[in-house]
Amino acid sequence: MTATPPKGYRFAGIHAGIKDDRDRADLALIESSTPATAVGVFTTNKVRAAPVRVCQARLPSRQIRGVVVNSGNANACTGAAGLRDAEAMTAAAAARLGCEAEQFLVCSTGVIGRLLPMPAVLSGIDRAAAALESGPEAARRAALAIMTTDTVPKLASATLEIGDERVTVFGMCKGAAMIGPNMATMLAFLLTDVQADETHLAPLLRRAVEPSFHSISVEGHTSTNDTVLLLANGASGVRLSEELVPRFGEALEQVATQLARKIVDDAEGATHVICIDVQGAPSDHDARRIAKTIADSPLVKTAIYGHDPNWGRICSAVGYSGIDFEETDLSLSVNGTPLYVRGQPTTFDPARESARMKANRETLLEVQLSLGTGRCRFFTSDLTVDYVRLNADYTT
Amino acid sequence: MTATPPKGYRFAGIHAGIKDDRDRADLALIESSTPATAVGVFTTNKVRAAPVRVCQARLPSRQIRGVVVNSGNANACTGAAGLRDAEAMTAAAAARLGCEAEQFLVCSTGVIGRLLPMPAVLSGIDRAAAALESGPEAARRAALAIMTTDTVPKLASATLEIGDERVTVFGMCKGAAMIGPNMATMLAFLLTDVQADETHLAPLLRRAVEPSFHSISVEGHTSTNDTVLLLANGASGVRLSEELVPRFGEALEQVATQLARKIVDDAEGATHVICIDVQGAPSDHDARRIAKTIADSPLVKTAIYGHDPNWGRICSAVGYSGIDFEETDLSLSVNGTPLYVRGQPTTFDPARESARMKANRETLLEVQLSLGTGRCRFFTSDLTVDYVRLNADYTT
Repeated sequence: MTATPPKGYRFAGIHAGIKDDRDRADLALIESSTPATAVGVFTTNKVRAAPVRVCQARLPSRQIRGVVVNSGNANACTGAAGLRDAEAMTAAAAARLGCEAEQFLVCSTGVIGRLLPMPAVLSGIDRAAAALESGPEAARRAALAIMTTDTVPKLASATLEIGDERVTVFGMCKGAAMIGPNMATMLAFLLTDVQADETHLAPLLRRAVEPSFHSISVEGHTSTNDTVLLLANGASGVRLSEELVPRFGEALEQVATQLARKIVDDAEGATHVICIDVQGAPSDHDARRIAKTIADSPLVKTAIYGHDPNWGRICSAVGYSGIDFEETDLSLSVNGTPLYVRGQPTTFDPARESARMKANRETLLEVQLSLGTGRCRFFTSDLTVDYVRLNADYTT
Repeated sequence: MTATPPKGYRFAGIHAGIKDDRDRADLALIESSTPATAVGVFTTNKVRAAPVRVCQARLPSRQIRGVVVNSGNANACTGAAGLRDAEAMTAAAAARLGCEAEQFLVCSTGVIGRLLPMPAVLSGIDRAAAALESGPEAARRAALAIMTTDTVPKLASATLEIGDERVTVFGMCKGAAMIGPNMATMLAFLLTDVQADETHLAPLLRRAVEPSFHSISVEGHTSTNDTVLLLANGASGVRLSEELVPRFGEALEQVATQLARKIVDDAEGATHVICIDVQGAPSDHDARRIAKTIADSPLVKTAIYGHDPNWGRICSAVGYSGIDFEETDLSLSVNGTPLYVRGQPTTFDPARESARMKANRETLLEVQLSLGTGRCRFFTSDLTVDYVRLNADYTT
């Protein structure tokens, strides 16, 4: 299904020369024809990339005209020079599009610790500005240009009919590794044509991030560059009334969740998407902690790669998650088959369960506790030989 | 160097039939000729194996006559039947050696969630009791019988000359995966012939565990069966006086540290031992948290497997360890070469650093902060294609 961009946005994606491969785009521009209200959620990593610092200093704002994004270089751990480069990227984009540098945001993703090749980046911004277009094809070119080890561009959209009017919520994101959910994860750009101010948008974004980018991991490594931006330019003519907030919030969460799922689905080397459903925890926070502990266990992730219904590794991961319980509080099902019920193993056919794991790309782990009503649905990928190979060879 | 057992202990290691391969021993007995004082440190996992529960109920004690250990089956997540089996193992060993069941301890390691083949285990205990012998060769047979995916038996010893007397501290351990340092990790048996009571031994053991079993990880997955036991039978005739405590504590720590290093060195699929040295943290506790975050990052571990001096992954792991700092507080050296100094990348030759990583089995990561005097030395292994292969295939 083609994702539909909202009104009043243009996109470009080009090869600026940051990546060696000339066939791979590495610079994207997103432009709003009028000043948009913008809010963001950022990495909690203490080592924050230069573009993250620039965005944090400029948001929230009601004057944002666009975002310039490069892939192939994270502009992280680059000190004062890196900060100057990030600011120069926004100044170059703003100059080409007739606004102030402060009206542009900037994101980077790629290798940490190298200075950007600024002559190539700046002339790339010129070319991208000249190439700006509206429509799904242009949006797809931008989504391609923000990819690093992603194998597919990631886009999603939802529309709301408000009487005769239509509001669109649209998003694009990138991410395939260094995905650990300690805040908004990776780069994601959520664009809408509703008219709204930051006091509405900021809590809506925080809420949308929880079940989406906050509920996925690949290997649990929190990036220095994680950024989720939400821009609302009002081009639909519809104002975000109190009455509309719930429907709009739902559409935003739906788009964010679709994008987050696409990240796990494209995780480096993955052969399985693992859905971890925790119920009956003392709180939602505790449920997330249990889910994340399971998701980050290499022993669980390699077992699923090997189609091994090794439930002991899953139960023992619950046991070291930091949540207090007795074994009789714990039950576990894998792909709907109960393997451990209230502290007792069940009798099941390992060969049959293994065959089912092999036949399905998705593996469902259901953890049931008897401690409360806390719940969480979390997504991760398996740990494969290809993941190790890809990450052993990434820079050298 | 051959590890020397202390006076008054006998050992056996035999094939009882828990492992399929008849050439691999799977049942060990350790016997003290006289009642020993014994203390233990155990897993903090809420899912505790049956033998852990039995040991915890019986310790500390001044009446311990020995330990029965099986490999190939963890007797974890096995409910009431598993607890009965663990108790039956101690009763069988005690009956053969003329003491009460409560005077025996029990440990298990292997696959989680299967009941032990008790007829084979009990007749194995009979044969092991008949095979008990003193000396290094018998100790080595016991060390072989507690192995799971270990490729070598792990033993160490230290001796103290006290005038004309001699006190020996001896240990054996097993462990190659499911190694996460949230307490004593894996199975380790520390034996001494000093005469001491539990009020001295318990704090000495806790202290010895910190820089040893508590400062290693393979993949950070805390086991359900982790147990470190310390037995002191007094057979040397030397009493642990206040004066002797520091020297004895040092010897105990030295043996524990040697054993812990052997675990990391034998980690599943490992091609590198990674030593993480953190200095200048707000506290030792914070330093350990930083070290463990680096040690548990699959991105750091795969980079080292690929001989990639990818210092950005290490710095970003420090950033999400939960310790508050500014980038200018952080410096990093890899194998003695400064790659990042006070928030700025250095100029270095990646090819030369990569070649050094390739040439050396040990990789040294030195993290220097300017926040305080907290420090920690931590050991882990790299994440390799073989680790994934081994763990994808472990049970099915």
